[in-house]
Amino acid sequence: MAKKRNIIVGQSGGPTAVINSSLAGVYKNAIERGFDKVYGMIHGIQGLLDENYVDLSTQIHSELDIELLKRTPSAFLGSCRYKLPEIHEDKAVYEKIFEILNKLDIDSFIYIGGNDSMDTIKKLSDYAILTGQNQKFLGVPKTIDNDLALTDHTPGFGSAAKYIGVSTKEIIRDSLGLSYKKSSITIIEIMGRNAGWLTGASALAQSEESEGPDLIYLPEIPFDIDKFLENVKALLAKKSTIVIAVSEGIKLADGRYVCELGSSVDYVDVFGHKQLTGTANYLASFLSEKIGCKTRGIELSTLQRSASHMASRVDIDEAFMVGGAAVKAADEGDTGKMVVIDRVSDDPYMSATGIYDVHRIANEEKLVPRNWMNKEGTYVTKDFIDYVKPLIQGDYSPIMVNGMPRHLVLNTKGTRKPAKK
Amino acid sequence: MAKKRNIIVGQSGGPTAVINSSLAGVYKNAIERGFDKVYGMIHGIQGLLDENYVDLSTQIHSELDIELLKRTPSAFLGSCRYKLPEIHEDKAVYEKIFEILNKLDIDSFIYIGGNDSMDTIKKLSDYAILTGQNQKFLGVPKTIDNDLALTDHTPGFGSAAKYIGVSTKEIIRDSLGLSYKKSSITIIEIMGRNAGWLTGASALAQSEESEGPDLIYLPEIPFDIDKFLENVKALLAKKSTIVIAVSEGIKLADGRYVCELGSSVDYVDVFGHKQLTGTANYLASFLSEKIGCKTRGIELSTLQRSASHMASRVDIDEAFMVGGAAVKAADEGDTGKMVVIDRVSDDPYMSATGIYDVHRIANEEKLVPRNWMNKEGTYVTKDFIDYVKPLIQGDYSPIMVNGMPRHLVLNTKGTRKPAKK
Repeated sequence: MAKKRNIIVGQSGGPTAVINSSLAGVYKNAIERGFDKVYGMIHGIQGLLDENYVDLSTQIHSELDIELLKRTPSAFLGSCRYKLPEIHEDKAVYEKIFEILNKLDIDSFIYIGGNDSMDTIKKLSDYAILTGQNQKFLGVPKTIDNDLALTDHTPGFGSAAKYIGVSTKEIIRDSLGLSYKKSSITIIEIMGRNAGWLTGASALAQSEESEGPDLIYLPEIPFDIDKFLENVKALLAKKSTIVIAVSEGIKLADGRYVCELGSSVDYVDVFGHKQLTGTANYLASFLSEKIGCKTRGIELSTLQRSASHMASRVDIDEAFMVGGAAVKAADEGDTGKMVVIDRVSDDPYMSATGIYDVHRIANEEKLVPRNWMNKEGTYVTKDFIDYVKPLIQGDYSPIMVNGMPRHLVLNTKGTRKPAKK
Repeated sequence: MAKKRNIIVGQSGGPTAVINSSLAGVYKNAIERGFDKVYGMIHGIQGLLDENYVDLSTQIHSELDIELLKRTPSAFLGSCRYKLPEIHEDKAVYEKIFEILNKLDIDSFIYIGGNDSMDTIKKLSDYAILTGQNQKFLGVPKTIDNDLALTDHTPGFGSAAKYIGVSTKEIIRDSLGLSYKKSSITIIEIMGRNAGWLTGASALAQSEESEGPDLIYLPEIPFDIDKFLENVKALLAKKSTIVIAVSEGIKLADGRYVCELGSSVDYVDVFGHKQLTGTANYLASFLSEKIGCKTRGIELSTLQRSASHMASRVDIDEAFMVGGAAVKAADEGDTGKMVVIDRVSDDPYMSATGIYDVHRIANEEKLVPRNWMNKEGTYVTKDFIDYVKPLIQGDYSPIMVNGMPRHLVLNTKGTRKPAKK
């Protein structure tokens, strides 16, 4: 009997609205290219270490299932935040992973994730080369933050940007409808620790019939709270309803996060990232105290990354495309690489996949260029908006059942349970 | 020249996703019934007192405008929170209002709003009768809170319930995708000061393929924080990912709001309602401290009432219907009444408009019946879900322009500016 040629796919890091569309792209292309089995790691590499995986043919039974999967937010297979040790630090972990991969006749290993996940691809492909093993390791980009290097943008960003633009527009309408003769200030807090791509997307609320936010503060520029107060006061002299978008990650010149000024919460995740929250509420109280008018803070929160019901069609399609492209690359012998999206043209918008060595990508952060913000650092420029706009186009109507969007969810009967510890 | 027969309409109180669908219903039916002019009060009765109003024919030019208006969140005309004095306390205000109404040849006055707005209808219709004037005053129900008496439900509730159900479902997926071997608790804070209709709607997340929230706490039942901790611990013994929905208005047995335990903010609006916020964050820190696992608080916030992009078709249609019914009632000579929605049948769902004396409605609050919650007060029953489900059915697809929902907004060139003070 010929050796099986199997493929395994995992999802890692924070969820997005379209990470499962990439999974669908991997599955569909793997089947079309004649891979024998398509395994899914349950909760990424961390689950794999527990031999926790599933044969995806027990989960996806039809074209309708593929369509449902594309519309299901968050990681269908479960995600993890697990950082592999350096190879010289702890070989045992690597030996364990490769033992499992060999046992399952894995030819190709696809990992859908952000910066931290590309670090995993880099280490595993290095280890395979160092130890003379033949598995191929390919990365599929995924992050709402859009902070991966070399790719024009990341799948997940367009849908989050669209949700943020739509929500900001609805919040602006809400604010304008309420205020009469009294000033009101609304501060919207948007995700993105170091990169302001998502916060800048609030400018999408601006259109023929709608104002955008009045001020936008990205984390790329140190936040000057005195200047901020001055800007708000200047605006209040001209209009009574003010809406401001701020990144959760804005920092003072001395490096302190604005959210730290008001809160005692200080949580650090396994990658050493501080968990940020409370920026909008802090600034709302600050302005209320200084100015005395009505203020409110709104955190867009988790829904930015999970709102599949407002996903962008371009984003879902591209997520599907990069999933498929990773399988193609692996099938053609590539390893240690990440698929990227190249923008072929702006108007009409066209994109294609490319591929880069993952060593050039891992642990690098792509920030909003300084010249895509205005001089004062209080808004994004037309270049920024022209860049984002094509990525939010089109819809994938949710498949509604009883008034609610239907999702595809893991049937745990088909999964292998974690080994007892 | 025959005396003009004009109608004026205003919007009051907190915005909803469908309050403009009622405005569209008033406008369309008023034109069909041959009213000469349809005026809109800019910012409700408060704007009217400043002679701030608009001829709606300068704003609505086509059937497409009507469709856009039905899909525009928040009050198109602007809202207010303005409480009329008792008639015996301050006659001058009433004299001023009626002077303006007479000057504009107003035959019928339609006010779209919640409890506080129905108080306005009651007082104005009483005053008209007391002073022998002929204008008719009709109320159109509107509130996401669903707390108005005598109507089966209120326009605005179905869309908010749908947004809450969909968002809760997406948050549950988000939570399940992330947790692996570590417990996590997510607390979702939902609007509804005294009535738990919206918080209960989080149960809509439960379906064939999705769990609902694990616990639901409505404001109708005193919140026992020790029992709450016990319930959460019992759940954690069985599962690692827990999602809890709480009303912003849950209170301890001694009457203190839970949100007051953690925050120093204490803002009271002109109707004497405390502004509530911070319940979810307080409970998240409380559980984190007591249990030591990862917790997060999510406030659904303003978007619950402004998310037109996820409005329910039943809700938009009924909002339109009650707007039209108010015009019909006024045209037929009714006054001092509010239009209500009667549920004609459950399955298939059918509704029709009814009409009630506003004296029976104003300032009364309809709470969730005790027997629509379980014995422990930690979930809603099937009766509750069967009641809500028909109200979230169907969609009004947003009219998308450049990837964003288009709204109809007030063209202030057509409006009369407030008189100088």
